[in-house]
Amino acid sequence: MIVVMKCEASISQVSAVIKGIEELGFKAHPSKGAERTIIGVIGSNRTVSLEALSDLPGVEQIVHIAKPFKLVNREFKPADTVISINGVTIGGLEAVVMAGPCAVESRDQLLKAAHAVKDAGAKILRGGAFKPRTSPYDFQGLGESGLELLAEARKETGLAVVTEVMTPSDVSLVASYADILQVGARNMQNYSLLEAVGRAGRPVLLKRGMMSTIEELLMSAEYIFSAGNSEVMVCERGIRTFERYTRNTLDISAIPVIKKYSHLPVIVDPSHSTGDRAFVRSASCAAIAAGADGLIVEVHPSPETALCDGPQSLRIPEFAEMMTQLEAIAAAIGRRIGK
Amino acid sequence: MIVVMKCEASISQVSAVIKGIEELGFKAHPSKGAERTIIGVIGSNRTVSLEALSDLPGVEQIVHIAKPFKLVNREFKPADTVISINGVTIGGLEAVVMAGPCAVESRDQLLKAAHAVKDAGAKILRGGAFKPRTSPYDFQGLGESGLELLAEARKETGLAVVTEVMTPSDVSLVASYADILQVGARNMQNYSLLEAVGRAGRPVLLKRGMMSTIEELLMSAEYIFSAGNSEVMVCERGIRTFERYTRNTLDISAIPVIKKYSHLPVIVDPSHSTGDRAFVRSASCAAIAAGADGLIVEVHPSPETALCDGPQSLRIPEFAEMMTQLEAIAAAIGRRIGK
Amino acid sequence: MIVVMKCEASISQVSAVIKGIEELGFKAHPSKGAERTIIGVIGSNRTVSLEALSDLPGVEQIVHIAKPFKLVNREFKPADTVISINGVTIGGLEAVVMAGPCAVESRDQLLKAAHAVKDAGAKILRGGAFKPRTSPYDFQGLGESGLELLAEARKETGLAVVTEVMTPSDVSLVASYADILQVGARNMQNYSLLEAVGRAGRPVLLKRGMMSTIEELLMSAEYIFSAGNSEVMVCERGIRTFERYTRNTLDISAIPVIKKYSHLPVIVDPSHSTGDRAFVRSASCAAIAAGADGLIVEVHPSPETALCDGPQSLRIPEFAEMMTQLEAIAAAIGRRIGK
Amino acid sequence: MIVVMKCEASISQVSAVIKGIEELGFKAHPSKGAERTIIGVIGSNRTVSLEALSDLPGVEQIVHIAKPFKLVNREFKPADTVISINGVTIGGLEAVVMAGPCAVESRDQLLKAAHAVKDAGAKILRGGAFKPRTSPYDFQGLGESGLELLAEARKETGLAVVTEVMTPSDVSLVASYADILQVGARNMQNYSLLEAVGRAGRPVLLKRGMMSTIEELLMSAEYIFSAGNSEVMVCERGIRTFERYTRNTLDISAIPVIKKYSHLPVIVDPSHSTGDRAFVRSASCAAIAAGADGLIVEVHPSPETALCDGPQSLRIPEFAEMMTQLEAIAAAIGRRIGK
Repeated sequence: MIVVMKCEASISQVSAVIKGIEELGFKAHPSKGAERTIIGVIGSNRTVSLEALSDLPGVEQIVHIAKPFKLVNREFKPADTVISINGVTIGGLEAVVMAGPCAVESRDQLLKAAHAVKDAGAKILRGGAFKPRTSPYDFQGLGESGLELLAEARKETGLAVVTEVMTPSDVSLVASYADILQVGARNMQNYSLLEAVGRAGRPVLLKRGMMSTIEELLMSAEYIFSAGNSEVMVCERGIRTFERYTRNTLDISAIPVIKKYSHLPVIVDPSHSTGDRAFVRSASCAAIAAGADGLIVEVHPSPETALCDGPQSLRIPEFAEMMTQLEAIAAAIGRRIGK
Repeated sequence: MIVVMKCEASISQVSAVIKGIEELGFKAHPSKGAERTIIGVIGSNRTVSLEALSDLPGVEQIVHIAKPFKLVNREFKPADTVISINGVTIGGLEAVVMAGPCAVESRDQLLKAAHAVKDAGAKILRGGAFKPRTSPYDFQGLGESGLELLAEARKETGLAVVTEVMTPSDVSLVASYADILQVGARNMQNYSLLEAVGRAGRPVLLKRGMMSTIEELLMSAEYIFSAGNSEVMVCERGIRTFERYTRNTLDISAIPVIKKYSHLPVIVDPSHSTGDRAFVRSASCAAIAAGADGLIVEVHPSPETALCDGPQSLRIPEFAEMMTQLEAIAAAIGRRIGK
Repeated sequence: MIVVMKCEASISQVSAVIKGIEELGFKAHPSKGAERTIIGVIGSNRTVSLEALSDLPGVEQIVHIAKPFKLVNREFKPADTVISINGVTIGGLEAVVMAGPCAVESRDQLLKAAHAVKDAGAKILRGGAFKPRTSPYDFQGLGESGLELLAEARKETGLAVVTEVMTPSDVSLVASYADILQVGARNMQNYSLLEAVGRAGRPVLLKRGMMSTIEELLMSAEYIFSAGNSEVMVCERGIRTFERYTRNTLDISAIPVIKKYSHLPVIVDPSHSTGDRAFVRSASCAAIAAGADGLIVEVHPSPETALCDGPQSLRIPEFAEMMTQLEAIAAAIGRRIGK
Repeated sequence: MIVVMKCEASISQVSAVIKGIEELGFKAHPSKGAERTIIGVIGSNRTVSLEALSDLPGVEQIVHIAKPFKLVNREFKPADTVISINGVTIGGLEAVVMAGPCAVESRDQLLKAAHAVKDAGAKILRGGAFKPRTSPYDFQGLGESGLELLAEARKETGLAVVTEVMTPSDVSLVASYADILQVGARNMQNYSLLEAVGRAGRPVLLKRGMMSTIEELLMSAEYIFSAGNSEVMVCERGIRTFERYTRNTLDISAIPVIKKYSHLPVIVDPSHSTGDRAFVRSASCAAIAAGADGLIVEVHPSPETALCDGPQSLRIPEFAEMMTQLEAIAAAIGRRIGK
């Protein structure tokens, strides 16, 4: 349920409605917009009627939200969520490209990648310091020294930094270095982690689990919202199907579906979804054409020697060439991307 | 295996190689190109060596093709297959839009749709006369009288016609009315039907089964080729996954994957893959941006009263508006579409 | 809808109800049981009320069936369907084992297999004469001479024969040799074929498509029923998932699900579902324990030389050993199997 | 790689081999069996040859393990892993039933369930104190007071307790109450949690992610092993497919597959895999017949009022009845279950 207040409602009227909601046993999530305040009413499926609230002064109407996600629902907040980071705006007119290596491997590798992706028009640097790997015997990332290299690359290039955090106890450490906290696909339903990033005071990039429905993705975003963080972008990164010529199957329709049902920005990862650099350009063009608000792309100065995901990483010239094509497609649909 | 003949090889040299192939127990599929002839060698996985053939006069080299599809493999024929129908070219610079109702319902419905989609830039009229339906109690199509209406619409508008054929005994009937024979998703592995359309002397639109891999799709195309028909286009129409906000999941990466491994034109069906007209435009834009050679789109003058697939059919003005956007995207990647 | 007649209803009362149904624009499917007649009412989702029928003499009640399958629905016919073939009963107390090679390859191979599976307790001989193969270059079966060998094996051993029919024009040929017509997984939604076997006057084994839902399987059985053939058994043969250690994933829960919603016998194919003979015994034991009415198992005298599906075919001694274990499990749940 | 030592190898010979392994840049995992010691050699895919080790005194042979999981691989340890907890043995001749409510809701509910499942033959009590829920607005479990109730139920009934732990910082708390730590399906690839339970000194029940392959499940078990905990049992709980008549699809073949490739005990969850109590009995019978080492079943004194998973929870008399049938099936395959 949402209580929509009148434009002219006073602060004390809003407070009275919140008090009324809580007395009925629900939680109130007020959201003050430019014109009016709306209040989300969250609670179990009890049969208590909220209709009495509609008689309180200042209330315009009460709206029922059928889907299980409430705060991230477009019915609750019709306007697109726009997130600003270091002068970069995500969710607005411009589509934003995040690029960089899968894993931070060395100072040289990271700085080379950072300068190159910036030159080609990327606005945000990606790179993993903590790497979730299927095998305990694979390279697990450089940890805090990787975070330090990311901070150095940010200082050198001015790019904002997005990097993954894998467990609640690392959240404050990662948040002290990164501009955007990434929650990886395998952790999409790690609720303790969702709550921790919900309290971290940093924008969050939440990746869809490879086995998760769009509804579950939005429910996980709801966890972050309900813990107090409304700067969430969701990321489609391919789902698991029976098809074997690609690593995963990019669910391109997730873009219009999420934008219909939610106000959150949608980012697409063309690298993990295809798993093969030969297909990354097509997937990226498709994502921008379908309305994505951004891309997160793996680019490596020397994919052959990468410790992680080499086959799906673009070479630097391939990335630059792709950016040129993306600019043309973005223009065709009235958006901007890149330089 | 493929035997690549020298440019200057004579006809009798080609014949001698074919004879040599057959004497080793294989079948030969010669293909005469502008510059040279290449000969596909097809047979079971026997361990007989074909190396002896390389000593025959006129042979340049012998190439092994690892994938199980041979004649539709891009290694066998590196140049794109281009199909011409009534002055429309599929697989070339221009992306082609096929549009019309799911099912032919009446003269009025079909003609209205045909004129409208032509006006908006479609080049081919779609419409089902024989409808495969999950339930025996649902509308099964008008049958031959539906084919007659399609022929009338073609005469009136000049649009070529694509329509589905469901069983071998109907192939000659449908071929007498239609310009392109469609094999539906449920029949992708109906091998008797594949062989029948392989002998029909009409271009074929082969839809991917909702449960089929890209490799299986190309193997089914191989059936049609090996029966003698090389005018085949394949169609990605969404695969079945666990996601429930869309009817199927459009496998957008199938476009670059098929174009890498095969020379066949790739058509995308944004209607069946999403199942909801709200998502058809995004899916169509994505498909063209990803390099599809065409679209097959459901358009209905009055979706609310459609006997079949109403919720996923575009209204006529929505289709026209989408065509305008597609023109811009096609231009951005150096192709043309529409008027 | 189903019209349940009173026990004492007369023939003319039944006729009057049928006439009433038809006058309302529906089709009537009367089914005369030991105690009473029930009449299925089939038609499009029109909003015509059938309530008027309840006033006709002899009508006890009118029951609404919510699921889209009607005639194969257990609400329509609560008692299990039992099919008798050559003295073998399918769907009753005894679970029935069908066994034999994937493909009929030679007289020697087939007779050796037939005698061996009979000795071990199988009641029905399986073997393909027409083989649907993903590749046009693979062995496609012996065709009619394979059917002749099956008939010879039946004569020698007394086993009934089940074999696949792939296209409508072959139905009468195959029906002239076989006791049970098999519709394969790839043809589960080949509606022309379903209608043809529906008129063939032979019991049908309908295999579930590898990515078809249980509801679609039952809808395909409904096609056969509505064409006039009520001797249908359905076969779970594994569905396609992301798991790669088995060829398909045996959907063991399909057994209780189908038995809850339908009255049809359920057969399980442990060979195609696992794709590896190492797992066939466990899958077979599971199927019998879960309540399957039978198994269809690939057994080959010499799997190493099989032209088709060798890796999943049991050797003869493995099959005999498995039958002993199945006897114990069947006994534990109060059923019989084997000798 | 595994180094198999001779039976008569001395401790100092083993130490010398371990030193040799480490000098080559690998990690050594020695495992002392009753007859001989074997040493797992773990490391990245480097091309360093270990053949030199075969010349060291006391080495019998060096075995290459192709699959990515090593310590949990049956090639590394051919004998079944058997875990003893409070006199209950998991992985031996007896199949063990774990039963109880989805969530601990109250003292009365839990004790009623505990006594009832014990009377029917269960050996271990299940019940969630920390509940991972898709929605932040659903009941999240009683937390530590739920753990206290579980400890009380153990004291009253003598049943061992299995309960879920969701985040690394809770591991020591949960381990202070529980006999078995459960890692839930959503956390199967929460590597921080896997490492934490790997150091917890308690047996672990690791549930398969609902869209994880068997190989990934065994890789996650490898994480726990490589952190030092070899008391791991894995649990098949249904995977996500396109089928909609059940909540998930029980992958029954996972039982023989895991038992072929790994030495770990396999537990089956018939409740989450089917999602409907009507199908739990069939699924349980199938699992025992297929060779599962145990079941984990949801049982509730009053499913209608359950705060979680009511529709899939068995009523107490249904559970007792099922246990009787399971006893007969276990006997038929030479095992024991229940009282």
